[in-house]
Amino acid sequence: MMQPSFLQIASTFKAVFLDSYGVIKNYNGLIEGVPQAIESLREKGIAIRILTNDASRSQEQQAEGFYKLGLKSIQYHEIITSGMMAKQYLQHKILHGKIGYLGTENSAQYILQSGLEHIAVKDINLDDINDITAFVFLDDEGFDWNYDISKTVNLLRRKNIPVIVANSDKLYPVSKNDVAVATGGIAKLVENMLTKKFIHFGKPDSQMFMYAFDELNQFGTFNKNEILMVGDTLHTDVLGGNKFGVKTMLVLSGNTRADHADAQIDASGIIPDFICSSIGI
Amino acid sequence: MMQPSFLQIASTFKAVFLDSYGVIKNYNGLIEGVPQAIESLREKGIAIRILTNDASRSQEQQAEGFYKLGLKSIQYHEIITSGMMAKQYLQHKILHGKIGYLGTENSAQYILQSGLEHIAVKDINLDDINDITAFVFLDDEGFDWNYDISKTVNLLRRKNIPVIVANSDKLYPVSKNDVAVATGGIAKLVENMLTKKFIHFGKPDSQMFMYAFDELNQFGTFNKNEILMVGDTLHTDVLGGNKFGVKTMLVLSGNTRADHADAQIDASGIIPDFICSSIGI
Amino acid sequence: MMQPSFLQIASTFKAVFLDSYGVIKNYNGLIEGVPQAIESLREKGIAIRILTNDASRSQEQQAEGFYKLGLKSIQYHEIITSGMMAKQYLQHKILHGKIGYLGTENSAQYILQSGLEHIAVKDINLDDINDITAFVFLDDEGFDWNYDISKTVNLLRRKNIPVIVANSDKLYPVSKNDVAVATGGIAKLVENMLTKKFIHFGKPDSQMFMYAFDELNQFGTFNKNEILMVGDTLHTDVLGGNKFGVKTMLVLSGNTRADHADAQIDASGIIPDFICSSIGI
Amino acid sequence: MMQPSFLQIASTFKAVFLDSYGVIKNYNGLIEGVPQAIESLREKGIAIRILTNDASRSQEQQAEGFYKLGLKSIQYHEIITSGMMAKQYLQHKILHGKIGYLGTENSAQYILQSGLEHIAVKDINLDDINDITAFVFLDDEGFDWNYDISKTVNLLRRKNIPVIVANSDKLYPVSKNDVAVATGGIAKLVENMLTKKFIHFGKPDSQMFMYAFDELNQFGTFNKNEILMVGDTLHTDVLGGNKFGVKTMLVLSGNTRADHADAQIDASGIIPDFICSSIGI
Repeated sequence: MMQPSFLQIASTFKAVFLDSYGVIKNYNGLIEGVPQAIESLREKGIAIRILTNDASRSQEQQAEGFYKLGLKSIQYHEIITSGMMAKQYLQHKILHGKIGYLGTENSAQYILQSGLEHIAVKDINLDDINDITAFVFLDDEGFDWNYDISKTVNLLRRKNIPVIVANSDKLYPVSKNDVAVATGGIAKLVENMLTKKFIHFGKPDSQMFMYAFDELNQFGTFNKNEILMVGDTLHTDVLGGNKFGVKTMLVLSGNTRADHADAQIDASGIIPDFICSSIGI
Repeated sequence: MMQPSFLQIASTFKAVFLDSYGVIKNYNGLIEGVPQAIESLREKGIAIRILTNDASRSQEQQAEGFYKLGLKSIQYHEIITSGMMAKQYLQHKILHGKIGYLGTENSAQYILQSGLEHIAVKDINLDDINDITAFVFLDDEGFDWNYDISKTVNLLRRKNIPVIVANSDKLYPVSKNDVAVATGGIAKLVENMLTKKFIHFGKPDSQMFMYAFDELNQFGTFNKNEILMVGDTLHTDVLGGNKFGVKTMLVLSGNTRADHADAQIDASGIIPDFICSSIGI
Repeated sequence: MMQPSFLQIASTFKAVFLDSYGVIKNYNGLIEGVPQAIESLREKGIAIRILTNDASRSQEQQAEGFYKLGLKSIQYHEIITSGMMAKQYLQHKILHGKIGYLGTENSAQYILQSGLEHIAVKDINLDDINDITAFVFLDDEGFDWNYDISKTVNLLRRKNIPVIVANSDKLYPVSKNDVAVATGGIAKLVENMLTKKFIHFGKPDSQMFMYAFDELNQFGTFNKNEILMVGDTLHTDVLGGNKFGVKTMLVLSGNTRADHADAQIDASGIIPDFICSSIGI
Repeated sequence: MMQPSFLQIASTFKAVFLDSYGVIKNYNGLIEGVPQAIESLREKGIAIRILTNDASRSQEQQAEGFYKLGLKSIQYHEIITSGMMAKQYLQHKILHGKIGYLGTENSAQYILQSGLEHIAVKDINLDDINDITAFVFLDDEGFDWNYDISKTVNLLRRKNIPVIVANSDKLYPVSKNDVAVATGGIAKLVENMLTKKFIHFGKPDSQMFMYAFDELNQFGTFNKNEILMVGDTLHTDVLGGNKFGVKTMLVLSGNTRADHADAQIDASGIIPDFICSSIGI
């Protein structure tokens, strides 16, 4: 593993895929030096795509969020979310009925806008579920965990329908030290209760990489070996990038601490091609 | 697998270990015919012990509960709970500091009465955790799931202390069709977040069987082949009983439905020595 | 789930993806009626692709195998194997050094022809492994299990390199009743020993579907909802097809027995859009 | 965690449970200083029991092995093996038929001497298995892995019988750097193929600790807080000892390297009460 700066490494690629949380921003806002790094990539003509497992907000909402933080050049088509993969799935596979969900009304609106009605778990009458044809774990907010998780278990015990997890992340950071249980964690709990297989979207799965790759190739010709995936998490960003066949960089500005990186790479067998402290340095 | 009645089979043993929920009682109260079955066992001089993964109430509280339901002969020493195993562990291994917990004050009082202070997760100040020396998952009630589960994750990220799960069951029945997520399910979620090993008590672990066996042998001489374990769940009652080396009976009055029993035995490889529809018939 | 015949259902699609083993052929040769079914698809102008987790033989070798069995119309570009995915990965990600492998020389030759040297586990000197830069599980034949599995464990303990599993299937059928442990099973054993993450190729992963989809679209315009995936295994063919977003059909001519299908769908939560006894009927 | 010497710590206990491999001996013979340490324990009147997951040899054979290495004071009743737990299980639960096994004839003889016939996998005719009533994974030697592992899978697919794993260890050390796949690893592979639950014996399960505890108490009165469990492996020795409720010591003379110990304790959440470099120092 070589250790020149992010920009030196990135300069040898035609496109860079960036994770959002822990790479571009954190609980505090933009990570130091990120606007300059993005600017440098733009100047060099290097294409940028942001691949995020955040399914709680649409591309437009996320682009707006970056704008408010000061990253004004991010266009919404440059953002690929795991929620988009879930949405695509629902459009192809669920053609009638109502979609039950656990999450906020906002996430339901942008992911479930497939012409079908959607209904929050809390509003479902368990004795009248004939018309519910799929279920989606959207977000960790927007419901009462004390009641709605068990209610979801019972719904899915009563009716065997496709269950989609729009964000497979088990936790997300909320401050320097602390995390919160994320959608993927709750979905995993329910999956454990039922011993069933849900359909998970998001990194490390190849689908998001494929989507980003296809989208990118509408703007030019990009081969896999001309793309660098940059992330702060071995099990999602690096594993997924490696498997998809692009070069990968681990940055130490998020989930993976500098003093733990080597041990975690060794223990996991997930090996990035490059390691940098941050894209902002 | 032979299929005579429970009492015919039980008559060939000196002692019977019974699971509580799904065998003796259910969401409706006592299962039909159970008082008569217990009475018959008493008349034949067959010793009874109740082995339950319910850690939310003490032996005395559970004996009182059976009394109110009409089972007046159950003495408190005949009840062995997974909570007692957790209590014993804490007494031997945690000799100073405070014990954090997730659960009700009632369960905390009977399990944690080891001379040490205890403190509910909601009352813990995450910036002042030096004196917390162990953590216990006691019950699925008594806390706000929306906040206290993530807070537990953060406590256990900040401090590496022994974590005890007083009841490993993932779910419990609340009505004919429905279940609720139990303590063991929440503990599993947190364990997944942290990728750590907690210390789980309750069936199928041998410890409760061993405890019941030792306690029983203070009242006479009982060999393992003179004991029958009766339960409604393959993965706890039957697996645990098989492993401990006693004969096992699956009853179909609880978790395992009559029309699924053979398939589940075949799929799991957990094979009871006997199958009966209920101990009450 | 509707139950018209395979051909009636297939007629409503522009392309059909077929699993090989259990759908087209079995331990006995071609499954009854398959040549006629393939012929009918050709006549209707429905595109065919065969998606197989068999990584032991190249496209050409597999096409030749079908030819010998009497399926003369299968062209080699219509066959997509998990081995091809592994090969692609190696070409993009492993640019120098030697590739260690467990498998036959034949599978090594077609998968590892990336300009790099390859070396069988049995020929590796564990004290001289500096130049080994990746490892591939290719096949369950071609080595001595008593020695070479442990030797692989030790190689991978000594050096942290990317490990690729060219076929994730845990077992394969060898007769009406019996199976054999497959490459994926051995890889899983080694993964368990090391508690590391290997890179697995093959269904249910999206990558093979994506590859087939892209390849297909070089011959016309095919949308996902115009494609039917047909397989005999819920956890690979149906799960993968569902996730990729195409319609799925379970056939009962292979791994999934007719009298178990409903129970397995119910237990797994993996729901095919269609069920047929065979493509040959 | 305090760090005085092993003997200083051990002196405060009435009994010491020792793991064998990595604590008393290794691939080279006795670990340095062990005879003197054992001698010191004897002089102080501290009871010794050796708890080993090695099921390949009987108590007598293992005592003889220690004698030859120069540890002349170890009596055979002081050795408790996971094989003895398996033997006890078979005696209580399997009362007729033949016991199939994977392992050496030697291990079969001492574990399976329960009055029943036993038959090696290689000698089983898969078309005549009516009289086979249980199966035991005994040892990693004594059979051809290329054939007999798949044959075991097929036997257990054809007939649903209790399956016992006499040694749950996944690997064992064969030299300073290298390991070999152990019985528990092979059993896990087969369990994965079948998705069934086998009955595993050996640490960390409570049963061996219970057995040692009961056996010890025939020679005096020993409470749990007067016993120290010493082992080189967090997931077996320390986890098992912690759960059983005795104090635990991790030694760094075997599986757990000095420079990895803290990280592994932190990552696993398995916390020993004491850490020493070796019992011999």
